[in-house]
Amino acid sequence: MTTTPEPPYLAVIFTNRRANWGDEAVDRDYEAAAARMVELAATIPGHLGVDSTRAADGTGITVSYWADEAAIERWRRHPDHLDAQSRGRDEWYEWYEVRVAHVVRAHGSPR
Amino acid sequence: MTTTPEPPYLAVIFTNRRANWGDEAVDRDYEAAAARMVELAATIPGHLGVDSTRAADGTGITVSYWADEAAIERWRRHPDHLDAQSRGRDEWYEWYEVRVAHVVRAHGSPR
Repeated sequence: MTTTPEPPYLAVIFTNRRANWGDEAVDRDYEAAAARMVELAATIPGHLGVDSTRAADGTGITVSYWADEAAIERWRRHPDHLDAQSRGRDEWYEWYEVRVAHVVRAHGSPR
Repeated sequence: MTTTPEPPYLAVIFTNRRANWGDEAVDRDYEAAAARMVELAATIPGHLGVDSTRAADGTGITVSYWADEAAIERWRRHPDHLDAQSRGRDEWYEWYEVRVAHVVRAHGSPR
């Protein structure tokens, strides 16, 4: 998982449940698109990193980290990401929730 | 996954990788303790909910939601949770990171 600078920075918490989970063609299509989005997000100025997990029941949490609101807005409006958001709503997610948050402090173990 | 009220509220983003992942005795012990912590957290005044996933590689993300800093502090200092934190550091996690964040806005799909 990702290493972030000292707070403050922003986090976008994306929780979701996959639709058609276990349908191999859909899963493959989704995984390819998700991998492209991770690569693309990393090119956005102000992107600090991303952590993502999905459990065996198809529920997923992705948390992406951003320097400021302008960076989030650049990512939100990127044309390829807008396409992915649309496919997400229509095809890939049974439901989802997006929360934008200001990280105020952090601590952890050594890596 | 959980439903939260309208922001503002707080999120604690806990990312981690399990140690001894796949050791059946450790996994069983961990899962039982984790389930107890979820039940106990729900009894803390100001607890709003929790979402958690773990991927097949042993990386996990748990996001818990809280009404205010006082609620987070009650949870952080609960004796049973202090014990679990100690076991987490010593036994259960290869590494972990805790981020405290102020959720400022949220949107999602219908459920």
